[in-house]
Amino acid sequence: MNQRGILTVISGFSGAGKGTLIRELLARYPERYALSVSATTRSPRPGEENGREYFFVTKEEFEKRIREGGLIEYAQYVENYYGTPKAYVDAQLEAGKNVILEIEVQGALKVKEKFPDTLLLFVTPPDAAELESRLRGRGTESEEVIQNRLRQASWEASFMSRYDYILVNDKLEICVEELHALIASQKLRMSANSSFITQMKTELEKYQG
Amino acid sequence: MNQRGILTVISGFSGAGKGTLIRELLARYPERYALSVSATTRSPRPGEENGREYFFVTKEEFEKRIREGGLIEYAQYVENYYGTPKAYVDAQLEAGKNVILEIEVQGALKVKEKFPDTLLLFVTPPDAAELESRLRGRGTESEEVIQNRLRQASWEASFMSRYDYILVNDKLEICVEELHALIASQKLRMSANSSFITQMKTELEKYQG
Repeated sequence: MNQRGILTVISGFSGAGKGTLIRELLARYPERYALSVSATTRSPRPGEENGREYFFVTKEEFEKRIREGGLIEYAQYVENYYGTPKAYVDAQLEAGKNVILEIEVQGALKVKEKFPDTLLLFVTPPDAAELESRLRGRGTESEEVIQNRLRQASWEASFMSRYDYILVNDKLEICVEELHALIASQKLRMSANSSFITQMKTELEKYQG
Repeated sequence: MNQRGILTVISGFSGAGKGTLIRELLARYPERYALSVSATTRSPRPGEENGREYFFVTKEEFEKRIREGGLIEYAQYVENYYGTPKAYVDAQLEAGKNVILEIEVQGALKVKEKFPDTLLLFVTPPDAAELESRLRGRGTESEEVIQNRLRQASWEASFMSRYDYILVNDKLEICVEELHALIASQKLRMSANSSFITQMKTELEKYQG
């Protein structure tokens, strides 16, 4: 029987390389991982596809899902809702796939509160100078946007210690394998193996004096 | 700077293959691991070497260490003391080596109580039939000894759920790598990286508005 998958929530500073890290993990182990796709009420941008970047739904549909408990977490930014559909995540976990959820710090902590078995990971570059250099290196953002992201990072850093594990994304190659090993090792948690333990105890009882 | 090593306590049923597993881990990654050597007041058996199997000490010396807090844990079996010298373990951890301690369940839980950061691992064969077959397969023990070990296993099983992780030793090759990945991933625990977090927070403060 397939062991249930592990739900992993990944947060981290903008510029830490979360996106690349997750894409690389899925590319290397496609049969082991599934990426959770969020639902949103915002309009698709050019090139975005329904069911790939997001599930694009109406405000009414989104609010119906909230009422029916169909979302693991949700938040509202600038008039739009964003949330994680529960049914898809459950189906993937049940099938033994590890589900990756990339969400910001407050959503992440809400998920952990509701599902304490969730693995909370925080991705960071090796230091602040490297973070700034990566944000500038993109060459696509204005100085104002870069300063905003750095201020945002400073605020997010205050939540770091509430995460379970930290991933310092220095070399992508190493970081992907650390991430994979970390999630794989969660399947060995005693709490993830209670049926095995019960069975072993029962089997051993016949030897008792 | 070297990160401090992880203290790992390994317990498991007699016949689970703990010894082979640990030897293989040390053989593959000699620079990453150190095996803790116990002190004992029992006499050396033929072939045993002081400082390899055990540190052989007198009863007076052992009791002096107890009084001076020089042991991580100790127990008394059949007139003899067995214990884990603290100084050696500390020195190895400080040097960044992961220290492996192979001890029985009650000692293991005492260590975890005193040092909550300890990683507690329980090694088990895939099922009770396999355990019995491995014990018989050795071909060196009497039926009485085998029955005793199986009764002992049944008692030990009641402590399993208090361990952090379980290692099902089915294929040694896989189990060694699981063990290595598990210990390596402990260095990513948020609680093992508090100085990094503090530094990152401080560095990011300058970006605050």
